[in-house]
Amino acid sequence: MQKEDGKHTDPKCDIGFIGLGVMGANLTLNLVDHGFRVACFDLDQTKVDAIIAKDEEERGDSPARVEGCSSYTELLSKLKSPHMVILSVPAGEPVDHVCSHLIDAGIQADDIVVDTGNSLWTDSVEREEKYKSKFIFFSTAVSGGEVGARFGPSLMPSGNPYAWTRLEPILKAISAKVDAQSGLPIESFTPGEPVTEGEPCATYIGPVGAGHYVKMVHNGIEYADMQLICETYQVMRTALHMSAAEIAEVFRRWNKGKLNSYLIEISAEVLEQLDPETGVPLVDVILDKAGQKGTGLWTAVSALQVGSPAQTITSAVFARSLSSLKDERVAASKVLRGPDVKPLSDEEKFAAIDKLEYALYCSKICAYAQGFQLMAVASKEHGWELDFGGIAKIWRAGCIIRAVFLQSIAKAYENNEELANLLLDPFFAEQITEYQSDWRESLAQAALAGIPCPAMMSALSYYDSYRTAVLPANLLQGQRDYFGAHTYQRVDKPAGKKFHLDWSDPARPQVAIKK
Amino acid sequence: MQKEDGKHTDPKCDIGFIGLGVMGANLTLNLVDHGFRVACFDLDQTKVDAIIAKDEEERGDSPARVEGCSSYTELLSKLKSPHMVILSVPAGEPVDHVCSHLIDAGIQADDIVVDTGNSLWTDSVEREEKYKSKFIFFSTAVSGGEVGARFGPSLMPSGNPYAWTRLEPILKAISAKVDAQSGLPIESFTPGEPVTEGEPCATYIGPVGAGHYVKMVHNGIEYADMQLICETYQVMRTALHMSAAEIAEVFRRWNKGKLNSYLIEISAEVLEQLDPETGVPLVDVILDKAGQKGTGLWTAVSALQVGSPAQTITSAVFARSLSSLKDERVAASKVLRGPDVKPLSDEEKFAAIDKLEYALYCSKICAYAQGFQLMAVASKEHGWELDFGGIAKIWRAGCIIRAVFLQSIAKAYENNEELANLLLDPFFAEQITEYQSDWRESLAQAALAGIPCPAMMSALSYYDSYRTAVLPANLLQGQRDYFGAHTYQRVDKPAGKKFHLDWSDPARPQVAIKK
Repeated sequence: MQKEDGKHTDPKCDIGFIGLGVMGANLTLNLVDHGFRVACFDLDQTKVDAIIAKDEEERGDSPARVEGCSSYTELLSKLKSPHMVILSVPAGEPVDHVCSHLIDAGIQADDIVVDTGNSLWTDSVEREEKYKSKFIFFSTAVSGGEVGARFGPSLMPSGNPYAWTRLEPILKAISAKVDAQSGLPIESFTPGEPVTEGEPCATYIGPVGAGHYVKMVHNGIEYADMQLICETYQVMRTALHMSAAEIAEVFRRWNKGKLNSYLIEISAEVLEQLDPETGVPLVDVILDKAGQKGTGLWTAVSALQVGSPAQTITSAVFARSLSSLKDERVAASKVLRGPDVKPLSDEEKFAAIDKLEYALYCSKICAYAQGFQLMAVASKEHGWELDFGGIAKIWRAGCIIRAVFLQSIAKAYENNEELANLLLDPFFAEQITEYQSDWRESLAQAALAGIPCPAMMSALSYYDSYRTAVLPANLLQGQRDYFGAHTYQRVDKPAGKKFHLDWSDPARPQVAIKK
Repeated sequence: MQKEDGKHTDPKCDIGFIGLGVMGANLTLNLVDHGFRVACFDLDQTKVDAIIAKDEEERGDSPARVEGCSSYTELLSKLKSPHMVILSVPAGEPVDHVCSHLIDAGIQADDIVVDTGNSLWTDSVEREEKYKSKFIFFSTAVSGGEVGARFGPSLMPSGNPYAWTRLEPILKAISAKVDAQSGLPIESFTPGEPVTEGEPCATYIGPVGAGHYVKMVHNGIEYADMQLICETYQVMRTALHMSAAEIAEVFRRWNKGKLNSYLIEISAEVLEQLDPETGVPLVDVILDKAGQKGTGLWTAVSALQVGSPAQTITSAVFARSLSSLKDERVAASKVLRGPDVKPLSDEEKFAAIDKLEYALYCSKICAYAQGFQLMAVASKEHGWELDFGGIAKIWRAGCIIRAVFLQSIAKAYENNEELANLLLDPFFAEQITEYQSDWRESLAQAALAGIPCPAMMSALSYYDSYRTAVLPANLLQGQRDYFGAHTYQRVDKPAGKKFHLDWSDPARPQVAIKK
């Protein structure tokens, strides 16, 4: 959007930015790093002053890249037409608050407003409809936290395709970049040096709402990924009696292999951290009550509602709920006995650690399979035509679940766009076949030793259920027909044809059994 | 409501009944069995005629006990004042449709309308408010299917306490009855012979909505109970290579012990059933795709929303979803390898069956613990002051999950009204301690053999999580603070105080580890 023949000479700004909290301020600085002139507004004038000061500090003697505004009207007056305004305000009512002020300030029908907050996807759908006569409401989910916002997030834009053609150069410029060959993030976290090479982690997801839905599922997968890692930590800590530092060392090793990922890396960082106050490992003074912001819960609820089995994601949400019952758990630990467990030899311990790596790896494959399966069901239900290879690609950098692993997922969907389940991709099928005995033995051991592994166990159940041609739902349908006349289908009759047995008929044929 | 001095001489009816489908017709016949005169109406006149014919057939030469009506106005005109009208119409819009017609027909402010459908509990709350100036909207959830409705259901009434005083004698009369000593249902399924002895399975649950909420959780528990039974069937069928008849025999045996329950009994009945068409066990021709009506899903969603860990109920819902992907599973079964398993000796097989009984028993305790825990959270959130002992008691007969087991649950809450979790009751704590090794070994075996046991595994994870004083949520909070500045609490500082570490500070203290 900058002029070819001389940067920043145009008195008008390329983009308006409303909401200068940590995320908003960092996105603004990211935009100016990439040559866009930004007009900024926040209800809190000190935040506007702060970003102007920050820009002065960073740009040195170059011309100002941000302009402060003190009203919605001033903001619009400082923008090139047609206007583009990006919002970074809390999800929910504040988004509508800003939109109505923009309408009062005279926003036009071909102007674009981009919501970058953590909005519920259905709210975005409603907003596009609600505002369509006033302006184009567009949304882009942002993943990667503060650092991502500043130096390159993963972006999931969705909405009006015409708006996307205008936004594309901007959003691709500020997004994280990956090396196409390796799938690894291009680390370019130096302010002021725009990243120009590599594949941008921003791709058009689909109609409005689709981007926030995909981001929601990303967060659901993130919950599962974190919980799975925590369960391996718990096994090492409790069953293998390892220290935080020893476990950090294991995570460092795993981070060089198949599990290489941001979450494994930061898990090691956390475990290596000492408490500045007491000098003991920080993790040992952190209270084991997990917080949650809602996106994992939304994913689980959506999975239930559309009937897509996402039990590993859901068990991660419940694990957080259960962790928060700290007082009850401490009381219960004194009452509820566990099994008697024999201590392991060093050799058994080392073997257990190696197996655990593959237990985590196989469980992780299942958690991602559930997330992609859920997106596929939602895509079909809403006619979004999601591109799963493209989604895996933009998650390779910038976001919390970034990992080499996503390169393999991208390949799986590139090889077969119609892939029904990630587990059926030849690479992943072969991987689980190869490592499943380690997975099974780790979980058998955890069951016998009394170490809770809800997410890993749910992942194994998912795998074994999915590969089972005949599940016991035949007995279940028999039960349902018995007590509620809910009917059943037959294996030897056309699909959809319903049958009911008169279970009260004394003459119905039964095997002779002593009752 | 019948006169003391001469039955049925009053020309006015005690109760109006609207909606004469299978449930409605059976509830009406149940009412007349207990001496109430009922005025009936249905939009389908043939249903009105049918119930009159049915009454003629059953009452012999006695005076008519039902009166047919052809309009809402006629129905109200035939009732004693103040009026009581019971609805048995589909949940949702039809309830409001009938209510608005009753208003047009002149229903009065102290008249009572009782919804007995499978309504979403929040709809009942809205309706009480919506209709409060017109009449008293009351709701009672009904469990027990067609047979229960006819001869004694379990009833969960909730709403205006004054309305309850008027409804109590009616609802208690038609409900199932249990022998207080044994907790066993008093089987009195002989039409025309009112049950007068035993404890009625109807108790006032609380403010409007509470009854339908409790019924919803009942159904969630039912989902879990059925799935758990199905998983033991799957282990016997697949890993132990037993026939349907052999498994039925095992269920018959279990039904004489701790697992004694309606669901185990009908599971044996289903497995003994031969297909009239082919002569093979019916279960082997029933297609393994499970249907669902929504109440299990509602329970799971509610558990997620209030943050009560109900993973076993939820995994039962997901197991049904997964079962419905029949074509995918058949395809996956050809691609995804399971483990290599050695066949068991007869001795090992018998041992495995015995262990499975206790695996099911312990898992069942956890599923019920989750259901009661969820009700406790909801009760607190909505100020319902639910009586859990009373709820367990009314589930001892009439409903689908009826079992001796509920007598023990009732006792647990009678012994300690403030019981935080069923697992902490001395009886249940001792039971799980005693049988946990069988549970653990069964699931370790299932993991190694590749038999999916999602609900049983989630139950074990729940038990082990709940009794764990320190869960790995400390690492999780460290991760969250690292990437999102979400803060953490400390074990050595007052609860609620939040801490954040500056993870980008290169001088932060870390253990020295080769990276």
